[in-house]
Amino acid sequence: MLIVMQSHASEDKIQKVIEFIKQRGFDAHISRGEDHTVIGCVGRKIIDKRDIELLDGVKEVIRITSPYKLVSRVFKPDNTIIEVNGIKFGGTHIGMIAGPCSVETYEQMDETAEKLYNSGVRILRGGAFKPRTSPYAFQGLGEEGLKILRKVADKYNMAVTSEVMEVNQIPMFLKYVDILQVGARNMQNFNLLKSLGEVRKPVMLKRGLSATIEEWLMSAEYIMSGGNREVILCERGIRTFENMTRNTLDISAIPVVQKISHLPVIVDPSHATGLRDKVAPMSKAAVAAGADGLVIEVHNNPDCALCDGAQSLYPEEFAELFKDLKALAVVVKKTF
Amino acid sequence: MLIVMQSHASEDKIQKVIEFIKQRGFDAHISRGEDHTVIGCVGRKIIDKRDIELLDGVKEVIRITSPYKLVSRVFKPDNTIIEVNGIKFGGTHIGMIAGPCSVETYEQMDETAEKLYNSGVRILRGGAFKPRTSPYAFQGLGEEGLKILRKVADKYNMAVTSEVMEVNQIPMFLKYVDILQVGARNMQNFNLLKSLGEVRKPVMLKRGLSATIEEWLMSAEYIMSGGNREVILCERGIRTFENMTRNTLDISAIPVVQKISHLPVIVDPSHATGLRDKVAPMSKAAVAAGADGLVIEVHNNPDCALCDGAQSLYPEEFAELFKDLKALAVVVKKTF
Amino acid sequence: MLIVMQSHASEDKIQKVIEFIKQRGFDAHISRGEDHTVIGCVGRKIIDKRDIELLDGVKEVIRITSPYKLVSRVFKPDNTIIEVNGIKFGGTHIGMIAGPCSVETYEQMDETAEKLYNSGVRILRGGAFKPRTSPYAFQGLGEEGLKILRKVADKYNMAVTSEVMEVNQIPMFLKYVDILQVGARNMQNFNLLKSLGEVRKPVMLKRGLSATIEEWLMSAEYIMSGGNREVILCERGIRTFENMTRNTLDISAIPVVQKISHLPVIVDPSHATGLRDKVAPMSKAAVAAGADGLVIEVHNNPDCALCDGAQSLYPEEFAELFKDLKALAVVVKKTF
Amino acid sequence: MLIVMQSHASEDKIQKVIEFIKQRGFDAHISRGEDHTVIGCVGRKIIDKRDIELLDGVKEVIRITSPYKLVSRVFKPDNTIIEVNGIKFGGTHIGMIAGPCSVETYEQMDETAEKLYNSGVRILRGGAFKPRTSPYAFQGLGEEGLKILRKVADKYNMAVTSEVMEVNQIPMFLKYVDILQVGARNMQNFNLLKSLGEVRKPVMLKRGLSATIEEWLMSAEYIMSGGNREVILCERGIRTFENMTRNTLDISAIPVVQKISHLPVIVDPSHATGLRDKVAPMSKAAVAAGADGLVIEVHNNPDCALCDGAQSLYPEEFAELFKDLKALAVVVKKTF
Repeated sequence: MLIVMQSHASEDKIQKVIEFIKQRGFDAHISRGEDHTVIGCVGRKIIDKRDIELLDGVKEVIRITSPYKLVSRVFKPDNTIIEVNGIKFGGTHIGMIAGPCSVETYEQMDETAEKLYNSGVRILRGGAFKPRTSPYAFQGLGEEGLKILRKVADKYNMAVTSEVMEVNQIPMFLKYVDILQVGARNMQNFNLLKSLGEVRKPVMLKRGLSATIEEWLMSAEYIMSGGNREVILCERGIRTFENMTRNTLDISAIPVVQKISHLPVIVDPSHATGLRDKVAPMSKAAVAAGADGLVIEVHNNPDCALCDGAQSLYPEEFAELFKDLKALAVVVKKTF
Repeated sequence: MLIVMQSHASEDKIQKVIEFIKQRGFDAHISRGEDHTVIGCVGRKIIDKRDIELLDGVKEVIRITSPYKLVSRVFKPDNTIIEVNGIKFGGTHIGMIAGPCSVETYEQMDETAEKLYNSGVRILRGGAFKPRTSPYAFQGLGEEGLKILRKVADKYNMAVTSEVMEVNQIPMFLKYVDILQVGARNMQNFNLLKSLGEVRKPVMLKRGLSATIEEWLMSAEYIMSGGNREVILCERGIRTFENMTRNTLDISAIPVVQKISHLPVIVDPSHATGLRDKVAPMSKAAVAAGADGLVIEVHNNPDCALCDGAQSLYPEEFAELFKDLKALAVVVKKTF
Repeated sequence: MLIVMQSHASEDKIQKVIEFIKQRGFDAHISRGEDHTVIGCVGRKIIDKRDIELLDGVKEVIRITSPYKLVSRVFKPDNTIIEVNGIKFGGTHIGMIAGPCSVETYEQMDETAEKLYNSGVRILRGGAFKPRTSPYAFQGLGEEGLKILRKVADKYNMAVTSEVMEVNQIPMFLKYVDILQVGARNMQNFNLLKSLGEVRKPVMLKRGLSATIEEWLMSAEYIMSGGNREVILCERGIRTFENMTRNTLDISAIPVVQKISHLPVIVDPSHATGLRDKVAPMSKAAVAAGADGLVIEVHNNPDCALCDGAQSLYPEEFAELFKDLKALAVVVKKTF
Repeated sequence: MLIVMQSHASEDKIQKVIEFIKQRGFDAHISRGEDHTVIGCVGRKIIDKRDIELLDGVKEVIRITSPYKLVSRVFKPDNTIIEVNGIKFGGTHIGMIAGPCSVETYEQMDETAEKLYNSGVRILRGGAFKPRTSPYAFQGLGEEGLKILRKVADKYNMAVTSEVMEVNQIPMFLKYVDILQVGARNMQNFNLLKSLGEVRKPVMLKRGLSATIEEWLMSAEYIMSGGNREVILCERGIRTFENMTRNTLDISAIPVVQKISHLPVIVDPSHATGLRDKVAPMSKAAVAAGADGLVIEVHNNPDCALCDGAQSLYPEEFAELFKDLKALAVVVKKTF
């Protein structure tokens, strides 16, 4: 930490700051500039930088060590590649996940899965427990939904991912699901993150609607610090003042995260935009920017979907999009 | 719901939209304007408006009934007044809650509580389970913290509030705590909200960092729809581009919420600004704008606080502020 | 405009609203729903919808006609294709503009232009009047800069674009420049927009840092309503809470604008991200999402640039990127 | 500036950075920590910190001197008190400005001014040139409006303020107006700011919709660096995701600005909220938080206003509010 003293701060104030940090177990390195004296605060202890900022004569306190460790490229320089059912996420590999917003019936899932399988998809998504803003909206089929998801996936030899909402649900999810998804609204449900740290299956961690990239990585750090090294980060749009799209998909988060962290970062264009006709251009943008994967909503009959039909692709639209994405991948030297 | 057709949409397209909504159990009322035909979609069913927006010829779909019911003044025109330990929140009453960010030791709580009691505070706050961005930061004393909080409160005949983070913790909290607090990061932890709906103690629901007022009220609706009618809304700052304060305290949320809802709305200036010297002006602003209460961080020795000392007031500062706030309350025709 | 009355509003209140709008020259079409009466307010006059919202018994007023006319696809369904020096923007054509942030010296421009020309660039950018946040920062060479820009461009048979900051500067710019650029900070400098409406050269209109897409289109409407039909929209990042990039490039604005408007929309990845290593991925994302053009900062010697060197590409980096972009364009069925 | 090197950066990289800054006229002070070497970059030259950030081995570059000089309390510790027509802004003085959004007719202004005068107002506001999002909306009466404003003000011995939109208009404004107002959309119209630096009348500088406090102060710095020392800062709401109010009034900007700068900071609650019934609570909040003044929209007949009637108070409402505000001022030890 660097403590920048106010312009021409008195020697007395400088000494009091040094004393303060030494009492808390830090060493002090002093450097006197033309205007400002800067005190380097060196040590392994944890301290709230605002406590120092309130001391007399202090202008600013600057943290210089990153708050994340395990998720950082400093800790692990090479890309983490996560493989599920033969599909890889990370490095030069782009993984594809597709399926409906919610599991509704066996027939719906069976029909959707068959078509997706024929397009080349090997990981199926489908919500069983739905986080809904309104208590009066469809909340999902619950465990019954997970059972359908598993049964259909097994029929087509696919893997599955679904959103887990609570610590209590984890054992149930482990029976049915290959990738446990943490939704945007639970990105800072720290109890859930800690519990997922003890799991030995990949976790897909969605970025919160107003989470900074740093906070998102800190949530991944929670999972990794529990011992689970398989975290897939998923960008799904942030909240801004613009409301022609449901959220603003932050495509630049892809190269930003890839520079800082070794973890794969994928994109969910369906929830980000909330509109079917924006899914194709934003999927292409994500691949072109270097995304390590995509999660796309596809429904066998979007017009009758119980949830988010408006942002779901028809299976034929998806098949065509997937072809285009494979062509784009070649240009950026990656492969699905 | 109102369905606005595109300018000069064909009769055929209009009929298809009517058919679509009738199949889903709605009635259609047609109104033909100069440019636009508008179809009123009348009924009690639930439908995702984006499904209609994707139909051919549709320009826009507009929801006209509010998504919230129980929290609304339409449902209950009179102010809800919540009373805890003789302190009232709502109507012409302003309730005060104060205490440290975290429970650290018995001595710390005892000393702080004594001073607060002498200033006139009757509800004590203190965190036992702390939601921290970093897995490496102090996470609170857990149940031990709740015990200390209760013991000290009983000594001074005070009530207590503390943050509950998980469904599993609710039974434990009910043993020690008078008001259960839901933190900003859990505002859309729907499982937690549902479980709190079954509790018969007041819940203080903090607004999420990027939650719209509508979403915040919908989260209160979750709690109320479970049967718990005692919800205190707490504005604690939203995330914006400005970073000279930790968050931007949305003071205008106070009159906005009070117009729509009968529930009391209080303000937490300590977390909103994150800086001690901004707590007094923002507390005064909140009271002047009509807030139904305040939650203020006070620590017997902020310089040594384990958490958020930088935003905690000294007991003497608080005592003086409380006097000023009482004087302001008179001007806006309210009382502490 | 649709006026939604409050649930069960009295007949008296309904009649008063009708009277109010009739007095202002509108017709009223009434439609009575189960809960809400809706009054269609039909006519060509202009009225502030908030004036109606304040009437007794009114719940909400909803505008249904778009505020923009000339920029809209309703007015002109076909894509506007703008051609400058043989380079086209719009439809299936992607135009490329490149050059340094600021014009510094003849040598700098000459060297940069030569390399860009050899890469296939035909439109050169360079700032002569710089909008700088600080009054103490380099403000550009002024008219001298425009002269250099023109001289170098003529040598290589290129067209040029540069930012105009004030009404007074327009005649000077018309002598030197082929595309007049309006900067993000001037997007709502309405006097400047009006004056540019009288010009008969293309205008590149950057989106303001916090401008909604609707406001951006309204600013284009200002220019078009003056008679200038050649407006190129330029997305350059919006301000959000995220600060790992200078701004958040809103890639989804591309398909959103293209659906509403016939005008070409291009992207400036250099100013959006502010960092050289993010320019390539974001340029690719823009092309993949369907952008009609790009403006990229390139400097012959970025390490010595007087302004924004940190976000400028080396000419060799640019040459390689341009090749990749051409390959990507093929996949999305467009051409540079 | 402090240059933080990456963890364990090689000596070679450190030396290259030192060389780089020395070539640009800076001195280097090196301080070696446990993980990070920090290089203090000392000198008076200007350099883009991102240029250094791109050097090999550099982790982060941190600016430690404030970009503003003249607006800062370091430059002038005492409050600047600006007096217009006997009304003071700053220190313990709160100034009141009131009047309609637009000047419409002599009668409207005369009637409004008379009532305001009787309430104790001595500075009248009224727009003559209106920045409107749509080219089709009422754009103001122009110079005719300024004449009316002046005539009415003279009748009641009041001072006036009105918004200037362009450099060319300044000489005209100087004939009629006592305080020149810069609108939110022109906060970074740097040519206008520079020209206002040469004026010797007070300038009221509104904060841009998405301007940080730092940018706002830098715009004030533009005016002051031209020699005009009388700048009144005006907070008028920032753009956030919340849309129940037109903008989010950032009340915390008041104490934040007052700590950094000696300039008075006032609040415009009318434009911030956009709704009449929110003006009173937000005016009270502003005074309680320590604002140095208020600008409030009042219209003799809001129902017939050509512009923003929905946010204008009735003269009687204003009179009552002004009384309440005076009572609140006493509590915070200030006076109108």
